[in-house]
Amino acid sequence: MNAIAVEPGTGSPVLVERPRPEPESGEALVRTLRVGVDGTDHEVIAGHHGEVPDGEDRLVLGHEAVGVVEDPNDTSLEEGQYVVPTVRRPPAGLDNEYFEHDEPDMAPAGEYVERGIAGAHGFMAEYVTSPEEYLVPVPAELAPLGFLVEPISITEKAIEHAVASRSAFEWEPESALVLGNGSLGLLTLAMFETVLGIDRTYCLGRRDRPDPTIDIIDDLGSTYVDSRETPVSEIQSTHEAVDIVYEATGYPKHAFETVDALAPNGVGVLLGVPEPWTFEIDGGRLHREMVLHNKALIGTVNSHRGHFEAAVDTLAQLPDRVTDDLVTGIYDLENYESAFETNDGVIKTAVEFDQL
Amino acid sequence: MNAIAVEPGTGSPVLVERPRPEPESGEALVRTLRVGVDGTDHEVIAGHHGEVPDGEDRLVLGHEAVGVVEDPNDTSLEEGQYVVPTVRRPPAGLDNEYFEHDEPDMAPAGEYVERGIAGAHGFMAEYVTSPEEYLVPVPAELAPLGFLVEPISITEKAIEHAVASRSAFEWEPESALVLGNGSLGLLTLAMFETVLGIDRTYCLGRRDRPDPTIDIIDDLGSTYVDSRETPVSEIQSTHEAVDIVYEATGYPKHAFETVDALAPNGVGVLLGVPEPWTFEIDGGRLHREMVLHNKALIGTVNSHRGHFEAAVDTLAQLPDRVTDDLVTGIYDLENYESAFETNDGVIKTAVEFDQL
Repeated sequence: MNAIAVEPGTGSPVLVERPRPEPESGEALVRTLRVGVDGTDHEVIAGHHGEVPDGEDRLVLGHEAVGVVEDPNDTSLEEGQYVVPTVRRPPAGLDNEYFEHDEPDMAPAGEYVERGIAGAHGFMAEYVTSPEEYLVPVPAELAPLGFLVEPISITEKAIEHAVASRSAFEWEPESALVLGNGSLGLLTLAMFETVLGIDRTYCLGRRDRPDPTIDIIDDLGSTYVDSRETPVSEIQSTHEAVDIVYEATGYPKHAFETVDALAPNGVGVLLGVPEPWTFEIDGGRLHREMVLHNKALIGTVNSHRGHFEAAVDTLAQLPDRVTDDLVTGIYDLENYESAFETNDGVIKTAVEFDQL
Repeated sequence: MNAIAVEPGTGSPVLVERPRPEPESGEALVRTLRVGVDGTDHEVIAGHHGEVPDGEDRLVLGHEAVGVVEDPNDTSLEEGQYVVPTVRRPPAGLDNEYFEHDEPDMAPAGEYVERGIAGAHGFMAEYVTSPEEYLVPVPAELAPLGFLVEPISITEKAIEHAVASRSAFEWEPESALVLGNGSLGLLTLAMFETVLGIDRTYCLGRRDRPDPTIDIIDDLGSTYVDSRETPVSEIQSTHEAVDIVYEATGYPKHAFETVDALAPNGVGVLLGVPEPWTFEIDGGRLHREMVLHNKALIGTVNSHRGHFEAAVDTLAQLPDRVTDDLVTGIYDLENYESAFETNDGVIKTAVEFDQL
């Protein structure tokens, strides 16, 4: 079968021939339909993040997949059921407490592999196998956009942890700021209204109009903030201090400037994965401000099955016009290279392995 | 009546004569018994924190009090009931949403005054009046140490917020690190076992043995960490990465080094109130570490009535030997100046306004 794989740090993904996998007991065979491309894929391709499976040269890419059950094998799934696979798996097939609690997203380094990212092949292949517990059903009408379930699940977790951190007191967030106008930032911007009922939102970017991401920000009724004119730490004075900041830039100064952007009792969720970088901060002022105004910063990574299930519900609620504008290209296997191109006209792409 | 007041920034507290207050409707008259002294008092005396009430030259000190109801007036309290007053009050007597929710600790600047600290006279006076809702009953046997209820309540809130922030997943903290061996740090060290059942604790200080604070750390079965030998960011390798860090030093580098001291999925609660100070951090590494290991930093200030009530229960559970060693001096009005002295032999002091 065909698969898309990469030798990290050495160039572009290539089409490779691999044996079609055979499901083991407890696993289903899934025919892959579409697999999304995101910033993590580009990090993996560049060799900045992730790792190939032990003893192999190349990693099969892809962690945002939707497929259809071709052979349920001995699972309780049914043939023809659309499914989205989760990403983290136990290392060497050995369960640990995090997987036993259905919280692989909370596992520390060494206690998981990530399909398509770190230590395990991904879903950019015509067929994949997976234990049933890692396959989340999606209704047929959502299958064409099923590759958005994984990124949405990342924000489901981030919002869950943000809300939990504010659960010891009365907290009704009314405003939110998303740092980053990539596909995850834009999905999150839409989710703040859908999931939390927040209709006063801001989104930070550094692009000139006309721009398709700013069009989506406008269309959502959100306010675009150009970081070249308004640093994060000044948004409180130029616009307003917000109850939630969602950092999706991977730019580490933003993690600390978030404290200034927050209203009292607010929470900043951090999702970027930057490289080391030493710089100056007014740590005294930030520390004091966090304490005197009860502010929180929460790091969050990955997501678990419950977040995927919530993401399926959220995907059903997102306005069609938003998802239509967000997905700028779906490419078949002959044109898979186009799915990895990046320019200002590209927001979200996917590779189509088989027609729906 | 006698009171202890200060003109912030100009020297030491002085004994002043003030009119005995008359309770208004809804208020009780309380005869003050003991009032503790803490780092905030020293900050107020030095003029680094807080403010005198509008139109006055001096602030009556004291926010850690225990007293006895002398005149219940029209409240439901009974004469002879021991009580601890809470600290925050509505500014100009005008309630706002935070006070209506019984969460004045979450009010932002401008939405509260603090008795004995900012904008309202404190409890270092022979008599005080207070609305009933801000007087928390304590049993007679705890009255001698009732001045510890306020500082304990600060940690009750900090622990509540820390636990809430980790409530979206299975989290059973097994180890804790307290930064700071002042009276609040030592009380907190004892509370980690009493409140959370954590018996593997560490306490950071910068003193040589023999030292009475290190004696308490030893007596609690905790491990003393000398910050001159072991920086906070190295505790993970010299000892272990911990599930909770409690910062009570006000040293802002500690706020950021806390990220390194935390185990995966851990939470650092920040309580210090430093002055502005610009320094370098490896913000990229800290940001990445917070994200990839789901770490959280939570600022927390003050406490509400519910935390005072929990603190009364906690005080009853703290070992006598700990509180005996912690309270190094109780001074009557003639010797009140001794309660404000600081040296390595002093841990916690109080002024006694009337005998129990």
